[in-house]
Amino acid sequence: MTIGVVGVGLIGGSIGLACRGNSHRVIGFEPIEPQTAFERGCIDELGSLEEVSISDVVFLCVPPALIVEVSRDVCRAKTSATVVTDCGSIKGPIVEWLGSAGEGRFVPGHPMAGHEKSGAKFASAWMFRGAKWILTPCDFTESAAIKAVEKIVKEMGAVPVLVDAERHDREVAVLSHLPHALAAVLVRMGGKLNSTEASAGSWKDLTRVGGVDPNLWTQILMANRIEVARVLAEFEAELGQLRAALETGDESGVQAFFKEAQRAKEGKK
Amino acid sequence: MTIGVVGVGLIGGSIGLACRGNSHRVIGFEPIEPQTAFERGCIDELGSLEEVSISDVVFLCVPPALIVEVSRDVCRAKTSATVVTDCGSIKGPIVEWLGSAGEGRFVPGHPMAGHEKSGAKFASAWMFRGAKWILTPCDFTESAAIKAVEKIVKEMGAVPVLVDAERHDREVAVLSHLPHALAAVLVRMGGKLNSTEASAGSWKDLTRVGGVDPNLWTQILMANRIEVARVLAEFEAELGQLRAALETGDESGVQAFFKEAQRAKEGKK
Repeated sequence: MTIGVVGVGLIGGSIGLACRGNSHRVIGFEPIEPQTAFERGCIDELGSLEEVSISDVVFLCVPPALIVEVSRDVCRAKTSATVVTDCGSIKGPIVEWLGSAGEGRFVPGHPMAGHEKSGAKFASAWMFRGAKWILTPCDFTESAAIKAVEKIVKEMGAVPVLVDAERHDREVAVLSHLPHALAAVLVRMGGKLNSTEASAGSWKDLTRVGGVDPNLWTQILMANRIEVARVLAEFEAELGQLRAALETGDESGVQAFFKEAQRAKEGKK
Repeated sequence: MTIGVVGVGLIGGSIGLACRGNSHRVIGFEPIEPQTAFERGCIDELGSLEEVSISDVVFLCVPPALIVEVSRDVCRAKTSATVVTDCGSIKGPIVEWLGSAGEGRFVPGHPMAGHEKSGAKFASAWMFRGAKWILTPCDFTESAAIKAVEKIVKEMGAVPVLVDAERHDREVAVLSHLPHALAAVLVRMGGKLNSTEASAGSWKDLTRVGGVDPNLWTQILMANRIEVARVLAEFEAELGQLRAALETGDESGVQAFFKEAQRAKEGKK
């Protein structure tokens, strides 16, 4: 099978590496860093956007702000048999566009994997092993197209999960966008200390994604800004409750806070 | 050398394992789970608090709320040659007590290592390898006592770092207490979702310490509650700035936020 990858960065490069490992031919469109993508073996060959668009399955791995525009270009150039899927972190805008375009062979997706560094330099064939790969098809999405994407996703070691797009965007606001925002605030506060020498594992873990690409994450948060703002407000309110308990020396309030957290942690892994 | 360990849980048990591995004789006082500590090989033998207190070096590994009381008991029973150190997460209360007790051979300490699970069951001889081990001696602390603790700490693979107690408590509020509070709020919010299926690495990392022992962490936060409350307020304010930028669609504000985070992250590892 020929797999097209539009945007061969961290995610597109990893898809290319994984699909090549699974004996597919991978053709990539990468306007910014074509050399890295090629030299790291992420693709068999580079092609124009038109050439890549006529592959059997096309993965769109472009920044959130470009998703709809590039989707339109690819759908214009593709064959009637081509299946297209995207890897954007927010599904609302693409699903909205799909509704007006009526593209039955476009399956919106979101692989739940990544890395704090970006670019094909950090791509890995193992990126998706054991990861969930969310798919948010529309009512009119052809089931054959969904099956085609699911098959390739499974080959890469990921687990496809069908989710409603709106629910997806609401949940990733909590599960992904919020953690990235918190990590960013944390490293900003750490930056004001003389040193972070007194730090241990919790600091290391909580700040791992604290220095992610500002352009990419601005686009992600802006694309989901209403949900993210709501979730941040909820977080501030919960944290404020703990603060109030500490300020007033309310030991049982602090304990109740941690007890509920422990219950939540044990209930959901 | 004979090493005494008072409280053979996660930290005390790990000290015991490491010191036994370094050919010391380890005697432990553990009133709650003596069997686990012994069976896991954390100690050569169990002893009374009085027996443990006359070791060459005594490590106090008891919950924050008990530190001062147990320190008093150990210092009453110890020999004049015995060196004592504690492993408490907050140094203010113990340093304050030391000031009144004038104990020159007591070296307040805080190993920057741990685990989200507690108890000797999870102890590890490797716990402290590569970790910082903060020591916050007073003006009157004998340098020979500091050297004795530093020697054993280094044997365990840790790096002793001398820090002012007040600065330590201020910094761990940001570097340790804040991350634990954030992780707890996160898992509480995750608990309200239908599932956390759409989560990836950032969620996993940010919530690792979200279900820590409520009793222990209530004591830790309460012992440092003024600093922690101040730090939580600062965090809320910073997060609120990001929220405001999202609410008003201020893209350059969101970008500036992430750019500063990236700079902070690159500046300090």
